[in-house]
Amino acid sequence: MQILITNDDGITAPGLQMLEQELSQIAEIVVVAPESERSAMSQAITVHNPIRVQKFDMQNAKHAWQISGTPTDCVKLAVEALLPKPPDVIVSGINRGPNLGTDVLYSGTVSAAMEGILYGIPSIAVSLDTWEDFSYQPAARFVCKLILSMQKNQYPPATLLNINVPALPDQEIGGYVITKMGNRQYKNVFEKRLDPRGRAYYWMGGNTIDCENDPDSDVAVVRDGKISVTPIHFDLTNHNILNILRKWEL
Amino acid sequence: MQILITNDDGITAPGLQMLEQELSQIAEIVVVAPESERSAMSQAITVHNPIRVQKFDMQNAKHAWQISGTPTDCVKLAVEALLPKPPDVIVSGINRGPNLGTDVLYSGTVSAAMEGILYGIPSIAVSLDTWEDFSYQPAARFVCKLILSMQKNQYPPATLLNINVPALPDQEIGGYVITKMGNRQYKNVFEKRLDPRGRAYYWMGGNTIDCENDPDSDVAVVRDGKISVTPIHFDLTNHNILNILRKWEL
Repeated sequence: MQILITNDDGITAPGLQMLEQELSQIAEIVVVAPESERSAMSQAITVHNPIRVQKFDMQNAKHAWQISGTPTDCVKLAVEALLPKPPDVIVSGINRGPNLGTDVLYSGTVSAAMEGILYGIPSIAVSLDTWEDFSYQPAARFVCKLILSMQKNQYPPATLLNINVPALPDQEIGGYVITKMGNRQYKNVFEKRLDPRGRAYYWMGGNTIDCENDPDSDVAVVRDGKISVTPIHFDLTNHNILNILRKWEL
Repeated sequence: MQILITNDDGITAPGLQMLEQELSQIAEIVVVAPESERSAMSQAITVHNPIRVQKFDMQNAKHAWQISGTPTDCVKLAVEALLPKPPDVIVSGINRGPNLGTDVLYSGTVSAAMEGILYGIPSIAVSLDTWEDFSYQPAARFVCKLILSMQKNQYPPATLLNINVPALPDQEIGGYVITKMGNRQYKNVFEKRLDPRGRAYYWMGGNTIDCENDPDSDVAVVRDGKISVTPIHFDLTNHNILNILRKWEL
């Protein structure tokens, strides 16, 4: 089995290195990751600039490359140009910070896994629910178990698994739950400042509002100290309202 | 009624200007758009750099601002910082080139409308199926009719409408069809070149492969010379496999 690892925090991020170390115990590893941080890039692709690719030295990987593009570029380049054949599994992460609820839409980590399933390759996104320094090992070990389980069970095609792991010591994590994508909203999203020349600029920031969330949602489950596993697909069609819309007359 | 117009081709793009002209006949217009092209940005947001905002002069708009960020930033800034109250409708486009099938995932145009529905604001993305110079007027007029129809009918919340208009004269367009999101794949995605110093770089390109597509898909309907209207929502959960996954044992 060959596993491609990517992320959006950049190739030197500790979350990626922990994945490389743990997953190398169950598979051959290749790494294609951004040369520096590319978070909140969603599924952006680099079409107006050339992409640079450079060999990178990693202890447990057969090959590793850092690239000048986005997380989605990494998966495309790996599959289309760098690897002789597509990997068996793609793992994106381990992200510094959660990718829960509607925040998934902005996530470079999850989008790289989305690109994986567009190629028909089983893909996992994995994030740790803290921006502080904390051990990535429980999350990496959970991914190992999950991949072995995907191989044993009939893994449903065209669906990625989005994993969020609470920032707790291994023995305090209350197992895992299969979840739905929840809801996240922010307040105080922009801060307006003046530069030394008196011209205005805006910083995006904001604090999450604790929305009402289904107890089956990723948001609620991680808040409760458990690992969330959300199956995510790329069919954005709202099938429930197709027939309602067909009755409209323009 | 107030309509916010944005796009990913930049504030001077002819598709946006045609929307501004036509929609001003049915509503008050405000424009918040990128200062230059931001295509293939997906739902990227600008969190590591400040965002600049500048007034822009547009004939039919009450207010217009150009910003240094992404299409999604435009919607966030408009709602959170620039407008005294949220707009009644958001329209993103008219994009130069189609946003059909799985390409929607990379689209800045569609992502701006996605941001709109995250705020609970009825939102439309609209694209013209050509990269050549061609009249945007039939597309703009269709959007006018659609907005009036959304007001008359009970518009389902949390669902954007993704419109793709074939590049045909008005009288040759064969009406519209409510569609599902289809499938788009590419071949020859990367071209490898050497720079004058002999170092490699890659250009992303590629030609669409004509995939098998459901006759009810956006891809098939536009190919057939009709306007596609695809309802798109932000719940990416694959609900069909939740119970299958719940039977797994890790």
